Amino acid sequence: MKIDLNSDLGESFGRYTLGNDGQVVPLVTSINAACGFHAGDPLVMKKTVRLAKDAGVSIGAHPGFDDLQGFGRRNMVLSAEELQACVLYQIGALDAFVRAEGLRLAHVKPHGAMYNMAAKDRTIAEAICQAVQAYDPGLIILAQESGELYRTAVRMHMKAAAEVFADRAYEEDGTLVARTKPGAMIKDPKEALNRAIRMILEGKVTAITGREISVRADSVCVHGDSESALAFIQAIRHACNEEGIILSPLKEII
Amino acid sequence: MKIDLNSDLGESFGRYTLGNDGQVVPLVTSINAACGFHAGDPLVMKKTVRLAKDAGVSIGAHPGFDDLQGFGRRNMVLSAEELQACVLYQIGALDAFVRAEGLRLAHVKPHGAMYNMAAKDRTIAEAICQAVQAYDPGLIILAQESGELYRTAVRMHMKAAAEVFADRAYEEDGTLVARTKPGAMIKDPKEALNRAIRMILEGKVTAITGREISVRADSVCVHGDSESALAFIQAIRHACNEEGIILSPLKEII
Amino acid sequence: MKIDLNSDLGESFGRYTLGNDGQVVPLVTSINAACGFHAGDPLVMKKTVRLAKDAGVSIGAHPGFDDLQGFGRRNMVLSAEELQACVLYQIGALDAFVRAEGLRLAHVKPHGAMYNMAAKDRTIAEAICQAVQAYDPGLIILAQESGELYRTAVRMHMKAAAEVFADRAYEEDGTLVARTKPGAMIKDPKEALNRAIRMILEGKVTAITGREISVRADSVCVHGDSESALAFIQAIRHACNEEGIILSPLKEII
Amino acid sequence: MKIDLNSDLGESFGRYTLGNDGQVVPLVTSINAACGFHAGDPLVMKKTVRLAKDAGVSIGAHPGFDDLQGFGRRNMVLSAEELQACVLYQIGALDAFVRAEGLRLAHVKPHGAMYNMAAKDRTIAEAICQAVQAYDPGLIILAQESGELYRTAVRMHMKAAAEVFADRAYEEDGTLVARTKPGAMIKDPKEALNRAIRMILEGKVTAITGREISVRADSVCVHGDSESALAFIQAIRHACNEEGIILSPLKEII
Repeated sequence: MKIDLNSDLGESFGRYTLGNDGQVVPLVTSINAACGFHAGDPLVMKKTVRLAKDAGVSIGAHPGFDDLQGFGRRNMVLSAEELQACVLYQIGALDAFVRAEGLRLAHVKPHGAMYNMAAKDRTIAEAICQAVQAYDPGLIILAQESGELYRTAVRMHMKAAAEVFADRAYEEDGTLVARTKPGAMIKDPKEALNRAIRMILEGKVTAITGREISVRADSVCVHGDSESALAFIQAIRHACNEEGIILSPLKEII
Repeated sequence: MKIDLNSDLGESFGRYTLGNDGQVVPLVTSINAACGFHAGDPLVMKKTVRLAKDAGVSIGAHPGFDDLQGFGRRNMVLSAEELQACVLYQIGALDAFVRAEGLRLAHVKPHGAMYNMAAKDRTIAEAICQAVQAYDPGLIILAQESGELYRTAVRMHMKAAAEVFADRAYEEDGTLVARTKPGAMIKDPKEALNRAIRMILEGKVTAITGREISVRADSVCVHGDSESALAFIQAIRHACNEEGIILSPLKEII
Repeated sequence: MKIDLNSDLGESFGRYTLGNDGQVVPLVTSINAACGFHAGDPLVMKKTVRLAKDAGVSIGAHPGFDDLQGFGRRNMVLSAEELQACVLYQIGALDAFVRAEGLRLAHVKPHGAMYNMAAKDRTIAEAICQAVQAYDPGLIILAQESGELYRTAVRMHMKAAAEVFADRAYEEDGTLVARTKPGAMIKDPKEALNRAIRMILEGKVTAITGREISVRADSVCVHGDSESALAFIQAIRHACNEEGIILSPLKEII
Repeated sequence: MKIDLNSDLGESFGRYTLGNDGQVVPLVTSINAACGFHAGDPLVMKKTVRLAKDAGVSIGAHPGFDDLQGFGRRNMVLSAEELQACVLYQIGALDAFVRAEGLRLAHVKPHGAMYNMAAKDRTIAEAICQAVQAYDPGLIILAQESGELYRTAVRMHMKAAAEVFADRAYEEDGTLVARTKPGAMIKDPKEALNRAIRMILEGKVTAITGREISVRADSVCVHGDSESALAFIQAIRHACNEEGIILSPLKEII
């Protein structure tokens, strides 16, 4: 049994520092690196790739909308052609730093509003997948199994990896409960941990309705923006070790 | 005897159209494509690369300062590390579209203020060359032979191509006469053409002082932003044909 | 009988020129000047305000989404608080140039996607009206009478002016027929002119269904981006003169 | 004897938080609020102005170069006309929030590279002063007495206030010792405090050469980005109180 731990990193920009990248990188198996549109700048990208290289961690591109002020979290309506070009641009930009270090880009995971929109809209999902496929058909798409992006990648015969969230409640259809609804966040770390381990080992999770649903877990998305977040990553690493689950980058899983 | 004709293209942005790219591309052997910082956006870059592919023309990256409002023509003081990352980012971004078309990027020529600053400042020239070398040591640096960028590329054992300008006057040291000085522009198309052909065939040009100087001409930089500019490209193509000079992309020259 | 003619201007940016502002300004009574977010830059704004001053034409702010690449035409989802601040910022920025010329800002008309979204969404309309009211309660909101923005301005006891479009077909509810539908554009200049004059004189227009509807016309929105567009403005000016309709800026109408 | 304490604030942007604005504002008499170019966004500006209003603190505009990535600290070469428009734009944008709160803008202090360049270059200083004067001749220019910006404001018969730095060493000509030189920073808080009080009371400071020089101190620039910085403001407030120096906003001093 193998699992990948992925985390969004490289989200600093110029004078602005965000996250504890130096502490998170050695604890995960894959990073999703911001590509300069919603966050990240060329120098941040260079440093992020180097951090990952030094820790031997796999690198994916984390393209977002060109909206630094909204941190890529504001929905934007782009034509499919614009979106495809916007994703292709960002993958290439990040890959420049990856290639310069003699490494290979492993996966692509859209950020924020682009991720959410791609989960619901087939046209958007296809535009993203086309960009990834045009750049390198060997790249893995990382997304929730229940969303359009994952389904589109599978339909297009691309490599797809399914991620789960330990700290979020699920609807019965496998989508996340909106943050605005009560109970959306799993606040008890112990419960979050148990849910994560069960998703990994059994492929099951209890939806917010109480009903048990199936979820595919190739990777667990973890955060590193607080002490408690870092402690949670430590806890999930420990629990995986106890259960005989091997932490592995996506390419060893897909 | 071979010569490359290069032109700066892909400088439209969103709603704004600049240049006659469709008409220029078939007339040159290399294009320098804007990479989204001083001009160009992802969709423009996609279309520009496709235009070049359709015409069988060689593609180079044309990175500039991150200054759309100033069109990359305003001097900006970046640290060497920032500049290196800024150039690497842009090369990768453009190359994404080149790779997606199954092509290979051929060269890099900085734009505007970055080009001018790199001609005078060794630290800047080295930062640019390091970015190019880190990305792909096979890429050709395109610059004036008289400037620091060309010299640095040679010193770093990189491929370097020397460009000349038909419509600009030269100082004795091989640099261009500043546009603010009288006589900076060669306005007579016939004279410009004769100068260009002489630079190609003899490696000589008459400086503004009247003294004859040596210039290395692997490529002639041409513009396509007006009817007269297009007519000049036609004229230089015709003259090359008359003189037995073969128009060839840089990789067949260097 | 009085009517205002308004036109969107000042949409150049840096190296990029858009429109024939110099020719349009003397033909209209009000301009909507871009404020640097979807188009326009500080220098363009300065020049646009000066053009209007020289022609004695009334000036309004034309705030848009912070999306130069999409020219403010891509829908973006901002919180009401963000939108209010975004509009307030742009009004102040434009007004700096207006004040520097010793003039007074007359009205505000949102641009592109913001205009369209404000016509349909009350929260968005309120955010815009609050920004305008907070800045200067004497400013006029310019919008279609059938939309939420106009209604909200009236409900908030603000000054509101209603604009009509000569070259666009109307639905029965007074909204414009979407550009994607057949018959959306009135392509015959003669028909467009007749419709405009009838909207001004009688407050009536024939909807795309054939039914006659009422429309309030304080201002006609005209374009100046082509020779035919300029000819249309000349024609409407001539027709108004024939009919005894006086061209007047909004403040003399509202 | 009166002195103003000024601090650069409102430098957060979107998802990125910088500084401890809430703690600093009540401790100073004037703030310099970022205007959206080098830092700050419309929502941040709104909140910053409100913080100042709640604390009864005077508000000035802090315009910078349009370079968020470089935080306005990278030299950029703009034409005088561009710079003038760029400053005017930012003043108006900030003032929109000030007016919306029923307040009046008090002063203008350029940021970072623009501040440093204006201290040395008369053309730049004039462009800034012209923008300020065109907007509102009653606005105070805040700058070092030894620099071109202060001198230009005086020459143009504008209101000018002189600021001093407690934690920076001075050259004999009254300019600051470059940060790259040894001894540029006064690291001992006690010494910094003594220097500040002496500059206020006696108008004297010991230059890095050991020679005593005259400095005009209408305002002391203080920082609030760390616990020790906040402690220093507390200390200077206490010392002023001990010495009978009254903390006052600039308009009560100039």
